[in-house]
Amino acid sequence: MHKVIFDTDPGVDDALALYYLHRHPQVDLLAITTVFGNAPVETTTRNALFLKDSWGIAAPVAMGAAHPLSGPDEAHWPTHIHGRDGLGNIDAPEPAAQPDARPAHQLIVDTIRAHPGEVTLVAVGRMTNLARALRTAPDIATQVKQVVVMGGAFAVPGNVTPAAEANLHGDALAADEVFGASWPVVAVGLDVTRQVEMTHAELTDLARQAGPEVALLRDLSQDYIAFYEALNHRGMVVHDCCACVLVTDPDLFTRRTARIRVLTEGIGRGATVAAPLDMRFPPGDWDSAPAQDYCTALRAEAVHERITRLLLAREG
Amino acid sequence: MHKVIFDTDPGVDDALALYYLHRHPQVDLLAITTVFGNAPVETTTRNALFLKDSWGIAAPVAMGAAHPLSGPDEAHWPTHIHGRDGLGNIDAPEPAAQPDARPAHQLIVDTIRAHPGEVTLVAVGRMTNLARALRTAPDIATQVKQVVVMGGAFAVPGNVTPAAEANLHGDALAADEVFGASWPVVAVGLDVTRQVEMTHAELTDLARQAGPEVALLRDLSQDYIAFYEALNHRGMVVHDCCACVLVTDPDLFTRRTARIRVLTEGIGRGATVAAPLDMRFPPGDWDSAPAQDYCTALRAEAVHERITRLLLAREG
Repeated sequence: MHKVIFDTDPGVDDALALYYLHRHPQVDLLAITTVFGNAPVETTTRNALFLKDSWGIAAPVAMGAAHPLSGPDEAHWPTHIHGRDGLGNIDAPEPAAQPDARPAHQLIVDTIRAHPGEVTLVAVGRMTNLARALRTAPDIATQVKQVVVMGGAFAVPGNVTPAAEANLHGDALAADEVFGASWPVVAVGLDVTRQVEMTHAELTDLARQAGPEVALLRDLSQDYIAFYEALNHRGMVVHDCCACVLVTDPDLFTRRTARIRVLTEGIGRGATVAAPLDMRFPPGDWDSAPAQDYCTALRAEAVHERITRLLLAREG
Repeated sequence: MHKVIFDTDPGVDDALALYYLHRHPQVDLLAITTVFGNAPVETTTRNALFLKDSWGIAAPVAMGAAHPLSGPDEAHWPTHIHGRDGLGNIDAPEPAAQPDARPAHQLIVDTIRAHPGEVTLVAVGRMTNLARALRTAPDIATQVKQVVVMGGAFAVPGNVTPAAEANLHGDALAADEVFGASWPVVAVGLDVTRQVEMTHAELTDLARQAGPEVALLRDLSQDYIAFYEALNHRGMVVHDCCACVLVTDPDLFTRRTARIRVLTEGIGRGATVAAPLDMRFPPGDWDSAPAQDYCTALRAEAVHERITRLLLAREG
């Protein structure tokens, strides 16, 4: 079993990723922590609580950072991608579930300390909560099993700028601290996530076969699918769920080991720059960064199949 | 015929590139301009004059920039790559040829204006002379046929840092101005140049067959070959000559069109970030940059063959 903390900003693809973790038979979802990103943190927290209600998720939800550790606040929330409500404009009801009393970074610290060496931290939003947890309790770095980050654009252009992927651009300093800590990180970036698409027809068919839980995913994904279709994708790109599949099926991914820095200044802010261990460079600013992994390839059809198979598993 | 101005910092691979341009039957080498980079500009100018003497090159040599437009001076000259003399420690005699009285950027401007619409500018060092020429005479941007730049690292790590290739790192502001001008630029970066290697055995054999002009190339390349062998290359990487082959044999290269910016700040200084025209990005810092090309692939064996064929052509 994979004991998982899911740090998230739901967010449409976050919802699919959360469902994947919730329903996967080899995942024990210990905690959900929220952060600003796809919407303000009040909204992403409300959405996490709504999904907890809708799907009967036991894990607590704790609200996290509203602002980045450094750099500007978001100029615009991506309502054209994730909806005004961060969840595809579905007009979800107020959730009955209440958030955990602790801030997200404290729930992360407490959960890791309760299961030393066992927790996989899956982070698919800005890295602010993770960096705060590290600053609060540096000891957790040696107690985490692994950190799986949806973020970065290594050998491909970014999305929010040509240099940067949105999660790392939104709090570049936090991301640099996460890659720089002595816990094992694997980054699942745009190099691989852009390859895993789910079409409108596929999701419609899955919802029809699976029942109301997947029908909710279908409903909240409609505008998100249209956004990606307009970018000439075949369907929605399931960025965040790719990070979850890496937890359960790591063999579907190809990694490269590198010292990774995140640029924090100028027009390149949020860019991931890797110094692969199999290449040599003059002494410099990467030398003190630990070796981490980033994904260079995935078996897109197999990842897609793992996700659809899980959506089709009997609900209950 | 390709009318060429060669802006260079010889430099071992610069010497091979210069020989290629000098000897190619479809190249009319109009001018050689020098810049700091592989060595101080006094040294690269002396080396260019020595090569002009050695090979009987008619084109004038003009000395250019000693310092970048912005950013720090080189902390260390790369003597471990190009030798203490910038030419493989061959103890070349003082050249008899004298430099042109004009500074490099003025010779560039004058030569372009003398052949409007006809000149290809091949720049294989820091872009300082080109940026100075643009600042002095913005009109040249519309009078140049094309600008071929050896520089950049688009989908691969850099060499002088994990972010940056040496030519663009050495004067990032100048490079950003060159990519930002309204002349057609094609960048031949590490993505492709790292694939073209010439082994010690090949060069030895070529020199034996060809005669003293190629024997000089062999002699000045020995330490450079050893440097690349230590990096697990099969032989020396002929970066600068790739840019020259692109002039004569453009069909051997695959290009992508993009708005290209060069980062000028922080640890990412000198990194090339491309916004491909076939992708969409939110409004931002790339929007006013013109569309330029960068190479994504080359036919390495064919490029290698073009170079060796030229080295084997009868001298005289």
